[in-house]
Amino acid sequence: MSVTAAQGFTASGIAAGIKENGNPDLALVVNNGPRRAAAGVFTSNRVKAAPVLWSEQVLKGGELTAVVLNSGGANACTGPKGFQDTHATAEKVAESLNTAGHDETGGHAPGMVAVCSTGLIGVLLPMDKLLPGVDKAVAQLSTHGGEKAAIAIKTTDTLHKTSVVTKDGWTVGGMAKGAGMLAPGLATMLVVLTTDADLDSDALDKALRAATRTTFDRVDSDGCMSTNDTVLLLASGASEVTPDHAEFAEAVRAVCDDLGQQLIRDAEGASKDIKVEVINAATEDDAVEVGRSIARNNLLKCAIHGEDPNWGRVLSAIGTTSAAFEPDWLNVAINGVWVCKNGGVGEDRDKVDMRYREVHIVADLAAGSETATIWTNDLTADYVHENSAYSS
Amino acid sequence: MSVTAAQGFTASGIAAGIKENGNPDLALVVNNGPRRAAAGVFTSNRVKAAPVLWSEQVLKGGELTAVVLNSGGANACTGPKGFQDTHATAEKVAESLNTAGHDETGGHAPGMVAVCSTGLIGVLLPMDKLLPGVDKAVAQLSTHGGEKAAIAIKTTDTLHKTSVVTKDGWTVGGMAKGAGMLAPGLATMLVVLTTDADLDSDALDKALRAATRTTFDRVDSDGCMSTNDTVLLLASGASEVTPDHAEFAEAVRAVCDDLGQQLIRDAEGASKDIKVEVINAATEDDAVEVGRSIARNNLLKCAIHGEDPNWGRVLSAIGTTSAAFEPDWLNVAINGVWVCKNGGVGEDRDKVDMRYREVHIVADLAAGSETATIWTNDLTADYVHENSAYSS
Repeated sequence: MSVTAAQGFTASGIAAGIKENGNPDLALVVNNGPRRAAAGVFTSNRVKAAPVLWSEQVLKGGELTAVVLNSGGANACTGPKGFQDTHATAEKVAESLNTAGHDETGGHAPGMVAVCSTGLIGVLLPMDKLLPGVDKAVAQLSTHGGEKAAIAIKTTDTLHKTSVVTKDGWTVGGMAKGAGMLAPGLATMLVVLTTDADLDSDALDKALRAATRTTFDRVDSDGCMSTNDTVLLLASGASEVTPDHAEFAEAVRAVCDDLGQQLIRDAEGASKDIKVEVINAATEDDAVEVGRSIARNNLLKCAIHGEDPNWGRVLSAIGTTSAAFEPDWLNVAINGVWVCKNGGVGEDRDKVDMRYREVHIVADLAAGSETATIWTNDLTADYVHENSAYSS
Repeated sequence: MSVTAAQGFTASGIAAGIKENGNPDLALVVNNGPRRAAAGVFTSNRVKAAPVLWSEQVLKGGELTAVVLNSGGANACTGPKGFQDTHATAEKVAESLNTAGHDETGGHAPGMVAVCSTGLIGVLLPMDKLLPGVDKAVAQLSTHGGEKAAIAIKTTDTLHKTSVVTKDGWTVGGMAKGAGMLAPGLATMLVVLTTDADLDSDALDKALRAATRTTFDRVDSDGCMSTNDTVLLLASGASEVTPDHAEFAEAVRAVCDDLGQQLIRDAEGASKDIKVEVINAATEDDAVEVGRSIARNNLLKCAIHGEDPNWGRVLSAIGTTSAAFEPDWLNVAINGVWVCKNGGVGEDRDKVDMRYREVHIVADLAAGSETATIWTNDLTADYVHENSAYSS
């Protein structure tokens, strides 16, 4: 059900011909109101793609009537022409929606259309294919179009990702592609969330930032940050219910968490999903820093791939951080076995069962009471293969 | 010639049985004077192996008569017993050298013996094999023993690494194993440099820190920092020549640079040696930060492996740093072709010839006049294989 699970939204996903293989590559999500409240979170990469620069500006008004998303090209590092192309895409979406009579008030304007792109960096989009595709996408808009939209934004994703939480009279739903936020896997993470809750953009922004901070921001597939990452949340108000803030925030968090887990499970070449849980840290920031350092350690990621509970590599990763800890007080468990105690050899490493896809690493800093969990995956020959052949 | 190229040094390398496959695993380097000046640089990892903790203390006196090095075990994360083992090793070396009459003054003391270890973390060394091995190593000390010492410290190295620079009446020579310093490849970088120049420990320390800062510290094979990295410089004064500081510093830098290049060329699984040159940075720190970020980008390292001049991944890596730059002013050349100009598409990427092992990336920040070069290698399926099977 994806982005059309909530009332007030239509969506579509079509093949515009941006991808040479003819797969779906253009998605459209339209908020039919009555509200058009919206919030967004973007990549913290300083090299931002044209659609990110555009959508950041558009969102300053706190309202969106539509989001258009394309796979098959990131439109990043494409200079002034790339930005013009993003602008032209938003204009085309507004014009096509107004022509099709999708808003009785004729109220679609380019300044209320967010644009998201994903694919290879440094290549201009084929606008001769993309712009006609917009008309086709508008023509196919449907309250059942959420799945097709989710399929059209895939790049190297093997599965499309959707999630829905329904509460008392209102719903939060969404779709995602890619793997990661601060540090996505290959190419970009794009997420569009919709809700029919009756909330303004400030309320959406607060809930979205809180949710991404502990979900997408803690998914770290390969430590590489994209130029295009975008997470949008749109509210139609169609349910006429204004939920309690905490309850709404939890629903958004739950959808983000579910989508984040789906991203990790579908990360490129991964054979293991690794949960890195840092406990007893002095601060949450310390816990996140240590978790990320462990999650990014190539040597450890290779060891996990080889089903080797190599806790020494966990300790060397912890040792590179500025977190508060004493080396002699560190403890590490892998799949429930405390293989490192007090900075040295703990329980027998042969007790660690690593046959399954899920791997759980606990790093006990013995320095406080804060905790954080980072999700990552192993490093495999398939990852190397997929990423050495991506643009060729 | 390695560590015995300079006058005043003897060395040996033997198989003590630490490695189960019977390969050489114990090296000894002895400074026969008349001077015993020494300096050292160690890992900045906060989780330090027992031999690092020991050698740091020993070096505070500014003198070393001997260095004992073992492969086959890192003696890291081994607790109080690990430290006792390091201490016992130094005691055994001093005792064995005195018994053998290697110093007419009987002056070998454990507090002047540095210890280096490399291999798997979290495993105690087999002292029943190591200690008898010390006697054997002492018995085989020779002014021609430098090569054998270099061979005995190998772990996954396919080649042993040595380098020598001879100037007017004095020499700097050395040996190395591993790949990296601040961010070594698998396991540890160990380096022992010797000189017969007549210099005190302060002069050695100054030259060594200056040299490592721009050589080993800028070799970044896989971004993973070891618990055991050690670079030692010993001076015998046997040439009776006190060189000019600048000339001596340059000789030390040249030997470090040569050994650093050898480390990168022999990095695990590498098929490409990548020189990342950052130019026109506002500060040298900016240049190093950007160079390291590019060198650590797994996506780029995979692309280079696939001979794909994927400059978009260079830009996304630059974008994650705090260096001064404007995205629209960035330029990137790969093997001499400016594939990215002003943050966008530059020359035709098909012009980039990537058939050869050497790959040269230039990132122009257009923000100043400082520069730095980081050396790294590509990410390959062989790296994954080697590191997923290392401890099993």
